[in-house]
Amino acid sequence: MSDKSINPKGTKDYGPIELLSRRFIINTIRKVFISFGYSEIETPSMEKRLTLYEKYGEEGDKFIFNIINSGDKVKKADVKALSSGKLNQFVSSISEKGLRFDLTVPLARFVAQHFNEISFPFKRFQIQKVWRSDRPQKGRFQEFTQCDADVIGSDSLFLEYEMIQIYSKIFKKLGLKDVIIKVNHREILNSIARKIGLVNKFNEFIILVDKKEKIGVDKLRNSLKKDLNIKDRHLDDLFELFEFSGKLSDFINKITEEFTDSNSIAAIEEINQFYKLIKDSNDLVKVEFDISLARGLNYYTGLIFEISHPNSSLGSLGGGGRYSDLTKSFGVDNLPGIGISFGLERIHLLMNEKDIFPPLKDPSNDILVVNFDTNFINDLKDIVESLRGVGKSIFIYPDSVKIPKQFSFANKNKFHSVLIYGQEEKDNEVIKIRSMNDGKEKLFKFKKFISEFSKM
Amino acid sequence: MSDKSINPKGTKDYGPIELLSRRFIINTIRKVFISFGYSEIETPSMEKRLTLYEKYGEEGDKFIFNIINSGDKVKKADVKALSSGKLNQFVSSISEKGLRFDLTVPLARFVAQHFNEISFPFKRFQIQKVWRSDRPQKGRFQEFTQCDADVIGSDSLFLEYEMIQIYSKIFKKLGLKDVIIKVNHREILNSIARKIGLVNKFNEFIILVDKKEKIGVDKLRNSLKKDLNIKDRHLDDLFELFEFSGKLSDFINKITEEFTDSNSIAAIEEINQFYKLIKDSNDLVKVEFDISLARGLNYYTGLIFEISHPNSSLGSLGGGGRYSDLTKSFGVDNLPGIGISFGLERIHLLMNEKDIFPPLKDPSNDILVVNFDTNFINDLKDIVESLRGVGKSIFIYPDSVKIPKQFSFANKNKFHSVLIYGQEEKDNEVIKIRSMNDGKEKLFKFKKFISEFSKM
Repeated sequence: MSDKSINPKGTKDYGPIELLSRRFIINTIRKVFISFGYSEIETPSMEKRLTLYEKYGEEGDKFIFNIINSGDKVKKADVKALSSGKLNQFVSSISEKGLRFDLTVPLARFVAQHFNEISFPFKRFQIQKVWRSDRPQKGRFQEFTQCDADVIGSDSLFLEYEMIQIYSKIFKKLGLKDVIIKVNHREILNSIARKIGLVNKFNEFIILVDKKEKIGVDKLRNSLKKDLNIKDRHLDDLFELFEFSGKLSDFINKITEEFTDSNSIAAIEEINQFYKLIKDSNDLVKVEFDISLARGLNYYTGLIFEISHPNSSLGSLGGGGRYSDLTKSFGVDNLPGIGISFGLERIHLLMNEKDIFPPLKDPSNDILVVNFDTNFINDLKDIVESLRGVGKSIFIYPDSVKIPKQFSFANKNKFHSVLIYGQEEKDNEVIKIRSMNDGKEKLFKFKKFISEFSKM
Repeated sequence: MSDKSINPKGTKDYGPIELLSRRFIINTIRKVFISFGYSEIETPSMEKRLTLYEKYGEEGDKFIFNIINSGDKVKKADVKALSSGKLNQFVSSISEKGLRFDLTVPLARFVAQHFNEISFPFKRFQIQKVWRSDRPQKGRFQEFTQCDADVIGSDSLFLEYEMIQIYSKIFKKLGLKDVIIKVNHREILNSIARKIGLVNKFNEFIILVDKKEKIGVDKLRNSLKKDLNIKDRHLDDLFELFEFSGKLSDFINKITEEFTDSNSIAAIEEINQFYKLIKDSNDLVKVEFDISLARGLNYYTGLIFEISHPNSSLGSLGGGGRYSDLTKSFGVDNLPGIGISFGLERIHLLMNEKDIFPPLKDPSNDILVVNFDTNFINDLKDIVESLRGVGKSIFIYPDSVKIPKQFSFANKNKFHSVLIYGQEEKDNEVIKIRSMNDGKEKLFKFKKFISEFSKM
């Protein structure tokens, strides 16, 4: 097959059945979001370069897809920047737009732009594609779909609890009730960073710690030592903390002992309140604190979440957390918010691996009408119209080719049944229906077809 | 507002109500496609440069959005090509991918790539966004949505008729039964081109004629004269033909007189058969032949369609036609096909102008629960859970701020009702529901709330 006949790496074509299974997940998520009072919005696939950049950290910016300016505008290419290796500067000289990298920054831009039309607290959800030029691998695509719910304009901890409720409801509905919601607080990570002598390198620290699952403890230790100059005794303290496992209440006791500065005390108070809200709920999936949970993105400031699944190598199925000033860089201050995200492709992969989708059938393949000749098709016009009217899909075979060929087509495409009306049926004023499951045939009087068929 | 807080030109943000009205159109189209036996697929937003280019004619290629190669790959920029003004060559040195320009070329690529998994005739539909860097204006966006139905692997004229049925059904369901389907045949245009002495410039001719509606008859005449060197007497003949209006049967008589070469005779025979299929159908919208209808894209070879609306300046609401070898450039021969497309944004604009959408209400705004205090919210847990279970959306106000503020929020966001449960209600073991339409309040016994409320 020639190269031009293949879709780009990291992207996927979706046939009817796979599309249905994706929609099954999307509709489950959408329904739950709506039931919690979140309203849906959509934003453009492209955002201005100014909107996108410097929001995801250096690590993130690298993976933004840039769109080349159209027409003569490319003449402005900064060739000097190119020859002196300033690739970012070169790209920015010929690109004013990029593809959406996530749904959170577009939300912040949306809130800033439409500030006067929105009444807060603004509960919105958004289910759209995002693009990242990251190296593709299992569960990681260059084009994928995020399903996000956010609340902007409230700092109530009740929302942290609501997010856990939403996660639980959705994963239970999808049949993935054994997911684990890992929780941490950015301020605790901040306290740790201070404690081990890190100043002004918090973002670098977060990005490295976020890679713990991916690269393993040993490599992380080496990186922290080499890249951030953390001393061995501090690393010992850090990894002792990272290895803590135990009940939530024990964990809270531990960090209360460990961190006594005022920022930590405020964070621990939040964790305590959050714990109070969730501890008596019996409808939640498992919630665990994980002090090594970091989340790669810069904007989080409070409690952060990540969904993992035991016995799965897929990485996180979603994540989110509290942010205090997402819209600040768009000129709107004092709008705290919180958001969570579901990664459609990974949830889809996992559900496929576990084989837990309900049976899905292409809704377009109810009845195939065998084409003997246009005249017979013409006779069936009203009947076809009526069947379509009651929600049946009717595929009229477009060519009057040999009948076995038409039956073989119906078989391959898993049609439910085949409608047969040729000379013999016309002469007897009947319509024959063959069920493709068992090959059984049934005759209906032509004039009473609709009423008798709908009773079947 | 700073520049970075604004979405790119030619794109749009969609709030909940506008999104609902878009979905209303999409769902109507999707249901009809399914009822005719078309199966849904989706393809990636990005396609390889090789896949996209040289399919839409020079005119089209200009408007493809190109994506810059990631990371160090931009170092390969062909600076010489840039400095010598070969902009295409320059762009192709730093771009391997572009954004989907329509849904037809991706379909052709899909069919070539998955040829062995598909059984033909392949009836597929696809409802996805496409991107063109054309100058934005009313009804023309840089990001817009096409809704396409195609059949690949059959040359049956029955499909031309089916396409007219699908157009008619959908526009009637949308309340736009006064649309007009203009029909022409590419071969007739070919005959005209030969007749007026055009050789090897058919594509240029098509592209110019396609602009007739946009630029008007006088400018078209000038362009044909200047760009294609057509003589005045030939232009007289051409515009006489273009001005023909009359009944379908008269039109067929006219072209039968006019064109007597074998290609034309075959085309006229097709038009005749098509006419026979549609002439006795009383469920179709108006179908008119228009000999100046050209359709801008290169791949059409037979009957072509375009949807226009009287009293609208929006341009066409959709179009399509027969193609004999769409997949040829992807290495698959002898697969004739036919396809039609609906332009979501223009249909949406027109329906808005005519104000014919059914009443649409944000499904996320059923009931707002007033937040007196977390404890009261906690008492309501089972009730909220039950309401959500029966499909109600419940927005719990996240902060226990002043009650008038919460009511004003409910009012602004057009909630159907507000659930009130504070100290007074708790003491009396009741729940108060206020309807936001008329301000009427109703008390329910706390313990019987769900059963009594659901009877309302």
